[in-house]
Amino acid sequence: MHRYLPILTWGKTYSRTAFSNDMVAALIVTIMLIPQSLAYALLAGLPPEAGLYASILPIILYAIFGTSRALAVGPVAVVSLMTAASIGAIAETGTAGYAIAALTLAFLSGGFLLLMGIFRLGFLANFLSHPVISGFITASGVLIAASQLKYIFGISAQGHTLPELANSLFNGLPQTNFITLTLGVLATAFLFWVRKGLKPLLLKAGLSATGAEFGAKAGPVFAVALTTVAVFALNLKDKGVAIVGEVPQSLPPFTLPDISPDLLSALIGPAILISVIGFVESISVAQTLAAKKRQRIDPNQELIGLGAANLGAAFTGGFPVTGGFSRSVVNYDAGAETPAAGIFTAMGLAVAALALTPLIFFLPKATLAATIIVAVMSLVDFSILKKTWAYSKADFAAVLTTIVITLGAGVEIGVSSGVVLSILVHLFKSSRPHMAIVGQVPNTEHFRNILRHDVEIHPEILTLRVDESLYFANARFLEDQIYDLAAQRPDLKHVILLCSAVNAIDMSALHSLEAINERLAASGVTFHLSEVKGPVMDRLLRIDFQKKLSGQIFLSQHQAITTLTLRTAEMG
Amino acid sequence: MHRYLPILTWGKTYSRTAFSNDMVAALIVTIMLIPQSLAYALLAGLPPEAGLYASILPIILYAIFGTSRALAVGPVAVVSLMTAASIGAIAETGTAGYAIAALTLAFLSGGFLLLMGIFRLGFLANFLSHPVISGFITASGVLIAASQLKYIFGISAQGHTLPELANSLFNGLPQTNFITLTLGVLATAFLFWVRKGLKPLLLKAGLSATGAEFGAKAGPVFAVALTTVAVFALNLKDKGVAIVGEVPQSLPPFTLPDISPDLLSALIGPAILISVIGFVESISVAQTLAAKKRQRIDPNQELIGLGAANLGAAFTGGFPVTGGFSRSVVNYDAGAETPAAGIFTAMGLAVAALALTPLIFFLPKATLAATIIVAVMSLVDFSILKKTWAYSKADFAAVLTTIVITLGAGVEIGVSSGVVLSILVHLFKSSRPHMAIVGQVPNTEHFRNILRHDVEIHPEILTLRVDESLYFANARFLEDQIYDLAAQRPDLKHVILLCSAVNAIDMSALHSLEAINERLAASGVTFHLSEVKGPVMDRLLRIDFQKKLSGQIFLSQHQAITTLTLRTAEMG
Repeated sequence: MHRYLPILTWGKTYSRTAFSNDMVAALIVTIMLIPQSLAYALLAGLPPEAGLYASILPIILYAIFGTSRALAVGPVAVVSLMTAASIGAIAETGTAGYAIAALTLAFLSGGFLLLMGIFRLGFLANFLSHPVISGFITASGVLIAASQLKYIFGISAQGHTLPELANSLFNGLPQTNFITLTLGVLATAFLFWVRKGLKPLLLKAGLSATGAEFGAKAGPVFAVALTTVAVFALNLKDKGVAIVGEVPQSLPPFTLPDISPDLLSALIGPAILISVIGFVESISVAQTLAAKKRQRIDPNQELIGLGAANLGAAFTGGFPVTGGFSRSVVNYDAGAETPAAGIFTAMGLAVAALALTPLIFFLPKATLAATIIVAVMSLVDFSILKKTWAYSKADFAAVLTTIVITLGAGVEIGVSSGVVLSILVHLFKSSRPHMAIVGQVPNTEHFRNILRHDVEIHPEILTLRVDESLYFANARFLEDQIYDLAAQRPDLKHVILLCSAVNAIDMSALHSLEAINERLAASGVTFHLSEVKGPVMDRLLRIDFQKKLSGQIFLSQHQAITTLTLRTAEMG
Repeated sequence: MHRYLPILTWGKTYSRTAFSNDMVAALIVTIMLIPQSLAYALLAGLPPEAGLYASILPIILYAIFGTSRALAVGPVAVVSLMTAASIGAIAETGTAGYAIAALTLAFLSGGFLLLMGIFRLGFLANFLSHPVISGFITASGVLIAASQLKYIFGISAQGHTLPELANSLFNGLPQTNFITLTLGVLATAFLFWVRKGLKPLLLKAGLSATGAEFGAKAGPVFAVALTTVAVFALNLKDKGVAIVGEVPQSLPPFTLPDISPDLLSALIGPAILISVIGFVESISVAQTLAAKKRQRIDPNQELIGLGAANLGAAFTGGFPVTGGFSRSVVNYDAGAETPAAGIFTAMGLAVAALALTPLIFFLPKATLAATIIVAVMSLVDFSILKKTWAYSKADFAAVLTTIVITLGAGVEIGVSSGVVLSILVHLFKSSRPHMAIVGQVPNTEHFRNILRHDVEIHPEILTLRVDESLYFANARFLEDQIYDLAAQRPDLKHVILLCSAVNAIDMSALHSLEAINERLAASGVTFHLSEVKGPVMDRLLRIDFQKKLSGQIFLSQHQAITTLTLRTAEMG
């Protein structure tokens, strides 16, 4: 019971200190989340209030079911972009159908996460390789920033790929509204400055560290307030500056997803992608923060927590949510001790949704766009290209392809090809394992690569060490190598496969070993294994592999060489 | 030049002995191939002469470009079935469109094989795991036998899956032609007997081994001759026995594939599957035969040889071909020394196509069906299920799924899901590697699993050995394990990852190691590596991993423990 409801564990020992720490953290996070929620709703193609709705019940449900003490759940940039990309193909932005599709996407995503958690399939998310995710996030950041430029220029533009967006923006440039552009550029510049310059300034001005942090995080709120007042005071609405306009004053509404088969089948693929990407991002944040206090994150319970959060979003007019990086770090740094901080944040946002929405009537969309652009710039990190180039060309190719395809063909194709590619890269790398012919280091029991060391070898014995587990992708490569080596050595009597680096042998590789054994035997060569690891040996014993083998399985390579040279000497 | 034209190598030293041996082998293989070629054309849904055409130019082209000295190329059962399955969806059997689609399929398949060979991509075929192929071939054998039963019963039936075929056959049973059934059953029984009983009988009767072999291989020819004469003499054609009928007397015609985009896009998928399956089967036969004489097979040159053979089939009225198992073994056993045997076989078949086709006018289709059924029964081998069950449950699941899907949904979906499944099974198995906490065997430098051995451990040091290469599918699992272990040990000061079984670390795993390092450091624990292998170390050095590491990289685990216990003692 405690496993599925982590709230029972931390709730039992909840203290007054924890309460006051959680309240402070919640206040800071709430102030940070108000403009962010509105902005991500805009990014997802939804009315701004949807961002607030998606932050209220989901946070509470995660606090009940999640295992991270600091994770803050809600709309995040990449997931909002993926939402826009998948729903944009189905419905027109601004229609009721679009909003219903968005909450249906959250519903499917929540159901999928919940099922993954219940069946403990969290490990499946591991099939997304890290460089592919990095590349994907970077490319998404670029796409997000590009998609927001239209609000900064005050023009209309659309598209889900970089060429589409660039083309559309370029065509719209003559319609630029220069007042909007001025507002947008000022807001962006201000927000960049707040990120870098405000906190040191506040510290210098004598504020406490927490105070300075609070001030810096409230930067976007200043930007919102200032530009809203400017639009109102200078009547910029009539000069063509796009504003947020009327936002209903209400708690999140009760909504129902649309479960018509057509919509479900159109959304299930995107829902799975969104769930997996959201989960991977969220768990990484949660683990980073948990490790600092040696707390545990249970990945499968996290799936349940995020699944519940998304179902919550689906039934309260929201859209897909996940654990956000910056808000969770702020929550942690501000001293949040338990998920109760999340519950207090939800209350703060509920108050905002009920009482504060009339205040943002004149909020220019350009300010929200500026908030998004500044936020996603921290996601864009092309250094992964440099790093993979230095470390592994195969990984570099996977990252580069993911970035290019995401930018050129959109997020869904981008991340899918990344996954397929990273699997192919792995298979490719292990399909041609490192192999070495080894000989004995004189007067020792050590055996080393004949190309690198001065070692003793026997013309009638060939010892091959293979530095990889044997499985279908490299089994036939091993066969080819052994047949080639055998064909080159007319005096050969024995082949020994030194298995010290073989952690596993799958059925295909077993079949290849049997084929090698038979084919070598047909040409008068005996086949042996040496230094087979315990778990691998257990399996081989289970199917009586030794009986089929023309040679022996030796415990050590030294024993193999001693036995075989003795035998050859006796026969010679 | 010699690499791309193996004929230059063996042709230069071609001797009179080789010539006479090749001629004898060619004669035996020709006699065996005549009924087989006709039968496989029938299986592919084509007129019988297509089988002869597909055996003439392809054999010659393979003799020029292929590297196997004994491989006999032509129509084979599984590829013919796949041809029928893929073209059946596009055109009606018996139409000109069907025949053109078949040769277009050979064209695409040939082009694909040729490209794979030129770009040396033969290793891609290794991604088909052996158990999946075994399961697929077995299921195909069952489908092929089932598809031929209609000829034995003299009824009409169709379908590409076992349920379709069974249903269609059951509905047709009332129309059974009992004369056809009698002929079919007698022919099948005779052919089974020939396989098992004729050779010993001929040997007992005093024939030489070669003679007996020849007699046994000619069994199908006897069956063809006897049943043809019976149909002619007893006028069974008028009693409803389906016969082959008029077959043109001609050398292979010159034909052109249809390169309309619609057809090409419909056939490219099947062409790739057929190429890969055909290549895998062919290379396995070629390697088995080559190993007996310590000859070399070059997989990439084999792709070129098979590609040329298929292009040859495309331009001479044929359909997809590959190296056949039984005919190659017969060719080898009959003494074929060089691919010239193939050229002589092609000549024999050309004579048959020119002169002998009127003789098979009255040949009942039931006889050809019997030939196929008896031939494919040797492909059906459910023992792979038993073997994988004993060796590896994961491989068992992959085989069973491949068999069930192939029977239930057809060959294309069957083999595709097999491929995907075997990759997933591999990722799944390596995603949760075996890990052991190790301690020092007292008074030695050996470190063993604390669960299995009586070893010394230190409460402030945790040494974890991971028995698998680290890559994206298991990187986060390693993270989870280490965080969990660290969370359970309040006294922990050092974590050592013993890397003696780690053959590779990919970029994702590197990122995980960095994350582990940072997160452990955040909680005051130092992270070390020990016994890192040379190639892995080279990569880590390239990116200055040591500088980021809070701890050290130790050459040996013993050195690690000695250094760290000393350091802890000094500090304590």
